[in-house]
Amino acid sequence: MNNAYQELVSLNKEIALLGSAASCLGWDQETYLPKKALSHRAEQLSCLSGKIHAMATGKDFQAKLEAAEQAGSNNLTESANLREWRHGFDKSNKLPQELVERSSQASSLGQASWAEARDKNEFHIFAPQLEKLIDIAKEKAELWGYQDEPYDALLGCYERGAKTSDVAKIFETFRPQIIETARLAVEQSLANPARNFEGDFPIAAQQTLNQEVAASIGFDFEAGRIDTTTHPFCTTLGPQDIRLTTRYYSHDFTSSLFGVMHETGHGLYEQGLPADDFGLPSGNAVSLGIHESQSLLWEAHVGRSRGFWNKWFPRAQELFPQMLDWTVDEFLQTINQAKYSLIRVDADEATYDLHILLRFALERQILNGEIAIADIPAAWNESFQSMFGIQPETDTLGCLQDIHWAMGGMGYFSTYSLGNLNASQLFHTATKDSSVREAFDKADYAPLLSWMRENIHAHGSTYHPQDLMKKATGETTNAEYHLAHLKRRFLDQG
Amino acid sequence: MNNAYQELVSLNKEIALLGSAASCLGWDQETYLPKKALSHRAEQLSCLSGKIHAMATGKDFQAKLEAAEQAGSNNLTESANLREWRHGFDKSNKLPQELVERSSQASSLGQASWAEARDKNEFHIFAPQLEKLIDIAKEKAELWGYQDEPYDALLGCYERGAKTSDVAKIFETFRPQIIETARLAVEQSLANPARNFEGDFPIAAQQTLNQEVAASIGFDFEAGRIDTTTHPFCTTLGPQDIRLTTRYYSHDFTSSLFGVMHETGHGLYEQGLPADDFGLPSGNAVSLGIHESQSLLWEAHVGRSRGFWNKWFPRAQELFPQMLDWTVDEFLQTINQAKYSLIRVDADEATYDLHILLRFALERQILNGEIAIADIPAAWNESFQSMFGIQPETDTLGCLQDIHWAMGGMGYFSTYSLGNLNASQLFHTATKDSSVREAFDKADYAPLLSWMRENIHAHGSTYHPQDLMKKATGETTNAEYHLAHLKRRFLDQG
Repeated sequence: MNNAYQELVSLNKEIALLGSAASCLGWDQETYLPKKALSHRAEQLSCLSGKIHAMATGKDFQAKLEAAEQAGSNNLTESANLREWRHGFDKSNKLPQELVERSSQASSLGQASWAEARDKNEFHIFAPQLEKLIDIAKEKAELWGYQDEPYDALLGCYERGAKTSDVAKIFETFRPQIIETARLAVEQSLANPARNFEGDFPIAAQQTLNQEVAASIGFDFEAGRIDTTTHPFCTTLGPQDIRLTTRYYSHDFTSSLFGVMHETGHGLYEQGLPADDFGLPSGNAVSLGIHESQSLLWEAHVGRSRGFWNKWFPRAQELFPQMLDWTVDEFLQTINQAKYSLIRVDADEATYDLHILLRFALERQILNGEIAIADIPAAWNESFQSMFGIQPETDTLGCLQDIHWAMGGMGYFSTYSLGNLNASQLFHTATKDSSVREAFDKADYAPLLSWMRENIHAHGSTYHPQDLMKKATGETTNAEYHLAHLKRRFLDQG
Repeated sequence: MNNAYQELVSLNKEIALLGSAASCLGWDQETYLPKKALSHRAEQLSCLSGKIHAMATGKDFQAKLEAAEQAGSNNLTESANLREWRHGFDKSNKLPQELVERSSQASSLGQASWAEARDKNEFHIFAPQLEKLIDIAKEKAELWGYQDEPYDALLGCYERGAKTSDVAKIFETFRPQIIETARLAVEQSLANPARNFEGDFPIAAQQTLNQEVAASIGFDFEAGRIDTTTHPFCTTLGPQDIRLTTRYYSHDFTSSLFGVMHETGHGLYEQGLPADDFGLPSGNAVSLGIHESQSLLWEAHVGRSRGFWNKWFPRAQELFPQMLDWTVDEFLQTINQAKYSLIRVDADEATYDLHILLRFALERQILNGEIAIADIPAAWNESFQSMFGIQPETDTLGCLQDIHWAMGGMGYFSTYSLGNLNASQLFHTATKDSSVREAFDKADYAPLLSWMRENIHAHGSTYHPQDLMKKATGETTNAEYHLAHLKRRFLDQG
């Protein structure tokens, strides 16, 4: 390792120390912050992010980066880190300070006007702010540059190296088949009504089950914890400090459990990244589409499977005596029902991707100017009708339901479906190994986790997501495995 | 307000933002940090404190300070802030970096060897490290400068503007009287044995009582909270973000309750400081001796009083049914027993100051070279015998019991007794006002809190502690009020 490279590493480690300190403040804000402390917390975070931004975009960083590039890299990890640092540095420096501030302000105002518009069901309240946000997104895309269309530049913020046309191609093949599969799944669920949960599921008992499950699938509670928040998330405060959160409903214990399994999947990825490289690209998660593959793997492929409940259902019955007269089959039928729903976050596995495909198509058209802001509600409802066979009666239940656009997060949505497809593809490949498969059927997930550790987690951001998928599974993201998974789960059962 | 002053304010506000971010990391470390995350947390804190130190001692600070001094102050607050900034800046800059690092290392090693020595009851394990810590303390005192003796410079770290000879003079008057008062109190308690608590006091019920009491004496739970730690403390994460902690024993609910009332006293002071001046001397607590006066006021003068329990005992009985056959008198006798104890932190009000007077005298002799390190155990035991009439059988129960010296905190102990004396004196003065007194007797503490808000909290560090005492009570710290309080509590009752 040469000196110039090492100096750049040190600078990035320092940036990561401040960044992870900010993550601690952010975690505290969502979990334990007293009400009146919010404005001081915002000042603390803004002070820290100002310092981080200055360090990551300043002349010192540039000089160290250039010196390290000049000296050259000695191995794959070094060259990947240099590649990612250069990419990040150039990307940050292409945006003038004025635009960064305007963007941050538009995002704040956007979220406020979105919340009001959603509460009042009046899209026109949000429209002018959305217009500004779209203009800013286009401005950024022009400054960052793109190959085919502006959407490339935005997508790349979440899915490193992804091209819109590649994602579009995957989704085009996927679209007619998932529409059909969802339709059949909904039909079948309608024909086989499931039992409903009854009675109260005490939160303490839910917490016990969640902790036991998370620990048993490999989450290290000496390097992480679970707390309660309104919106569940996973955040990293250090290489051995991964904080998960969840929320509890007393009428349904599976909501917090699947939430925890989802966040545990994120947490296992973070706990599996190379700890010594914390703060370097080689120690960071590579993309949202890969991150989401890990959360969905544990939530859906593990958590909603028969083998898992063969093991865990007796424990759930112990903790929740009202489940004592249920069979595992009845329970599986209840947790794996398919149903069209207006709201994305309430959607089941079978219909979830429809919500994403709708948004992805719409975003591209908005960015390319094919749909005017004022026409979004009509376009949304029309698409919804054609894909789901129903449409929302209000914009609150339609195009105003998500916060993403209001935050300026154009390009984010597609990573949810990429996560679904990647999860199924990785699961398929991992379980081709008979020892992984046999253990999985017996609810022993150590081999599955080892496979992910070795094939995904250990690589950090050394490879771009699609290169990582190819290395791990032999091919880039392919919808076939997810479709096969959904058919097995929703069409072969019952 | 002139520009030069305003620039200095801005710089100090930024330092305070980073400092309070570090406080958040510190709070999290004591409350929720996963075990394996400790070393990364240490790195985060060291990175932040490095940045804070550089900002508070650097050329930019110096230039801004000089410019502001040149421009002059417009009012009392500005001139107090300039005075304190100058004092702090000079003090920090008098220590070479090499000494700061050596001191920090000696403190780490000191705590480790102290812990081992205490566990094994072998003073000689700690002795070499203590020698180094004393040498460093002397070195610092020489660099900082002092008027009469090196101890002045160390004491001044905790009690701004205090002179050792003044404190010694207060303690000299106090000493024979407190020894006699303690003796009589112990005798009287022995003659009137109290009832013991029985059964289990559930933690949830303790928490309910603690929250109700803290809120009722004025702690704002929208600007603070209570969590659980091994060692109770109060820390400030922002002007409206005061975090208290406590620990619970299931055999005695009063331990956590008095702990919470103590920390609430600290918290009320912090919540009462001028919020707009957060991070400036005028918005900071002035000294440990004043801080401790606030915690002891609420723990001892309020929490152990008859009026308080006339109101709260029925509530305690509701929460802890095993107390139903107790009278308030019996309960007061139990919580106000005097007894000689070897361990300072277990001491009652009547005997607590003996522990401090012993340490204060010893520290001075050690600093002045009158006692060699190796002779500390013998000197400790001899003093103990003469003051308490008993002596520890082991050093673990004697001179090895406290962490303070191992941390390099020579000079700290005396602030505990100053806090006791100040609390009694402030309480005496406040309750000379008949409306404060009458409300106090009816367990209405709003007027008492208002008095403290106005006479202590509102002033931040504008006045030195003894000037503040004089302004608030008409005289500097005087032991007479505390002696009178102890005699009323321990010798007139039963």
